[in-house]
Amino acid sequence: MIQGYDPRTGKPAGEPVAETTDSAVDAIAEAAVAARPGWEAMGPAGRAAALRAVAGALDSQAAELAAVADTETALGSARLTGEVARTTGQLRMFADVLEDGGYLDVIISPPAQGVPGLRRVVRPVGPVAVFSASNFPFAFSVAGGDTASALAAGCPVVVKAHEGHPQTSAATARIVTEALASAGAPDGTFAVIYGVPAGVRLLRHPAITAAGFTGSARGGLALQQICAERDVPIPFYGELGSVNPAVVLPGAAAVRAAETASGYAGSLTLGAGQFCTNPGLLFIPDDEGLRTAVAGAVEAATGAPMLSERIHSSYDEAAAALAAHPAVTPLATGQRGEGPWAATPQVFLTSLEAFAAGLPELAEERFGPAGLVITYPSVGALLPVLARLGGNLSGSIHADPESAADLSAAAPVADVFSRTVGRVIWNGWPTGVAVTWAQHHGGPFPATTSPHNTSVGATAIRRWLVPVTYQDFPDELLPAPVRGRS
Amino acid sequence: MIQGYDPRTGKPAGEPVAETTDSAVDAIAEAAVAARPGWEAMGPAGRAAALRAVAGALDSQAAELAAVADTETALGSARLTGEVARTTGQLRMFADVLEDGGYLDVIISPPAQGVPGLRRVVRPVGPVAVFSASNFPFAFSVAGGDTASALAAGCPVVVKAHEGHPQTSAATARIVTEALASAGAPDGTFAVIYGVPAGVRLLRHPAITAAGFTGSARGGLALQQICAERDVPIPFYGELGSVNPAVVLPGAAAVRAAETASGYAGSLTLGAGQFCTNPGLLFIPDDEGLRTAVAGAVEAATGAPMLSERIHSSYDEAAAALAAHPAVTPLATGQRGEGPWAATPQVFLTSLEAFAAGLPELAEERFGPAGLVITYPSVGALLPVLARLGGNLSGSIHADPESAADLSAAAPVADVFSRTVGRVIWNGWPTGVAVTWAQHHGGPFPATTSPHNTSVGATAIRRWLVPVTYQDFPDELLPAPVRGRS
Repeated sequence: MIQGYDPRTGKPAGEPVAETTDSAVDAIAEAAVAARPGWEAMGPAGRAAALRAVAGALDSQAAELAAVADTETALGSARLTGEVARTTGQLRMFADVLEDGGYLDVIISPPAQGVPGLRRVVRPVGPVAVFSASNFPFAFSVAGGDTASALAAGCPVVVKAHEGHPQTSAATARIVTEALASAGAPDGTFAVIYGVPAGVRLLRHPAITAAGFTGSARGGLALQQICAERDVPIPFYGELGSVNPAVVLPGAAAVRAAETASGYAGSLTLGAGQFCTNPGLLFIPDDEGLRTAVAGAVEAATGAPMLSERIHSSYDEAAAALAAHPAVTPLATGQRGEGPWAATPQVFLTSLEAFAAGLPELAEERFGPAGLVITYPSVGALLPVLARLGGNLSGSIHADPESAADLSAAAPVADVFSRTVGRVIWNGWPTGVAVTWAQHHGGPFPATTSPHNTSVGATAIRRWLVPVTYQDFPDELLPAPVRGRS
Repeated sequence: MIQGYDPRTGKPAGEPVAETTDSAVDAIAEAAVAARPGWEAMGPAGRAAALRAVAGALDSQAAELAAVADTETALGSARLTGEVARTTGQLRMFADVLEDGGYLDVIISPPAQGVPGLRRVVRPVGPVAVFSASNFPFAFSVAGGDTASALAAGCPVVVKAHEGHPQTSAATARIVTEALASAGAPDGTFAVIYGVPAGVRLLRHPAITAAGFTGSARGGLALQQICAERDVPIPFYGELGSVNPAVVLPGAAAVRAAETASGYAGSLTLGAGQFCTNPGLLFIPDDEGLRTAVAGAVEAATGAPMLSERIHSSYDEAAAALAAHPAVTPLATGQRGEGPWAATPQVFLTSLEAFAAGLPELAEERFGPAGLVITYPSVGALLPVLARLGGNLSGSIHADPESAADLSAAAPVADVFSRTVGRVIWNGWPTGVAVTWAQHHGGPFPATTSPHNTSVGATAIRRWLVPVTYQDFPDELLPAPVRGRS
């Protein structure tokens, strides 16, 4: 049985949910295969309407969903209600993507002397497995971005629920299933399964043609290997982790110390630091004022209950290991949060030289509100160290826009980031990923397993689409998007 | 030393070429890293001019190149001269792709209330390793499609030459290197290495950020594993093999038996059958006339020297294994070709039922002019068997356009192919891949390791491009393609 727990008390929250049996996993996978032609045949307009129906149904029960999720995650009503809205906004965005039609990626090469005419279009890859994340019970879970983009693409979806929020998953699943059925989607278009063994069995099932994952590097790499070792290997899109370097340039440090410090502390401790976009590494000039301001802002910050006992103990271990590192000194400690699994914000200090000597260990992800502040002597010295960091989801640059020196120093930092992160941010913090078309929530390894792809933004749909080219085909036998075009 | 051989005699052809040493591989990989900023900074226009310079230089020495290649491959002057033209046409196509600019895949999400502005664009992934094929000494070798598309993307390229044509590779490399230098490309933008150990060392080198491969399933899967096991795994785009099912519908069999038979025999035996697009499986109605016509056309066909002793012995073994299969009978044998490594065209016959019982063995690729003709009792019976085939580069449908029955039967065949092959062909044969923008030369596993990607056509460039999104960035710090756009 999968039992959720209330992070504020460490006690069971709600009824447990049964693990999905092997035979049920197989039946669900086969139902997804059976649903494929019908779901695909609904076409972009039909699927857009179905996604909007799902969004409307979730919105209509946002308060109830947020309440259930709060008992399992302690993320708070405001955040969780907002996350439902983000999730339904994302479903509607993919409805817009379908209506726009550009996602079909049509290319026409007319016939010429001795050369056949070719018409290229994409088609859905087939049933998709989605592995939910612990830290976004809605936006990266049952009805999250992977589900929305795969359904939009025309793929049936089977979601493996996260152990951390089984009741939230079940409640979301009921709403999604009913809304899809009302919109005319065939049975089997969508299902949720429970338990790690069920997830592994699903991933090995021949019916599954691609998989999306958001979670730890260890879990993601294990699942990726399963995908690679199947008789027919399948694409695996894993978002694994990130430390999101942020660089404060000297001008910004000089004129905006207080604002920078409070922005950093807010981003670091938001949601108990449980974000893949958490700014784990802050590079600052050797500036007493900014260092003091950061210390003050972190000391004023309060922790919060972490999502699970395991996440909490991992965080404590990671923070303790950092504290014990010989090249690192404590800079500030915040207030302990509520309950048995509360995180205490902790920020440490080191020099650029010591940081570089301590790579890669000092740049490892510490999931939670633990930050490492690195003082750099010059931007010139910083650049090669930034270039040595592994791939990240984001890199942030804080500059004084009035300072010519900052603007000039920012250019090479942005250049390094353009090759090492998926999103380069100007005078902002990485938490809070805008769900808009141009978003790229991805990055080089180890941030993700596939640097070409994103799990947020309009192009997230491409993960579930495969091209096919028709050569010299009669118009009446072509799929609709390329019919009548030559 | 890498020694080429003349397939017409089995004797050495030209001087051997030295294997690239470990230290030379490392120096080449590091030179590629050093060249990256300069090659990227030439911009689309500069790189387009450089690609056109390479094309012009190769064209101006097409006859000499074809002559060298003929001594190493025995593919014949006409084919080889044509292949140089195809190769230079492809370089020019990617110059056009650069000038078109659509490949930059720009998406702009303007800022809105509380939502940052995002500008998304792609950037070159970095130095690329290319593994050449034996069977296309130009079009899938040193200056072939992987090289052209990766250079276009802004990536330095290191090609591992194929052992089968070292002198052709060296001659091509000299021309490409000189032309790139004349066009202003930095040293290190392009290099060729020799020998399997050098190729493996290159693939493991941290400088390499992606790899392209055309060749056998065994070789490709071994290289893919190396890519996956690196400290930083890299994308591997392998084209592994294909049997390219072709279906003759009853109407076409009735009215076009002779034309179908000669087209099939021509495609099967072209270039001694040494094409990844070779039509290895021909599905025909149980039609005496067509069967007889196929037998006649194959008997009239003449084999040719195969590229190497190894390819020749593998072909003989594969054809012998097929001949020994209890469910298979010989249908026709063609004329033996010239020299010690000559292939003899061989076509075998089986029933759909026996074929289905013999899967997957009977659908394995047999590299060379060996065909299996499968008689089917009805299109209804054929469909589930077609659906059981692994992924293929192409699937062909032969129909009588005047026959309503054929058109109606073609629809479900095309539907199965749309999910199992990369290119669906109407009344044509799979050999001869048009180098035009809409081409998709790819397909589900095992045809390729990445069903989303192609090695021919404008979208081949996407394999070497990675997205990055700029959040709230000042215009002057943005890369040119998204500057001034909001």
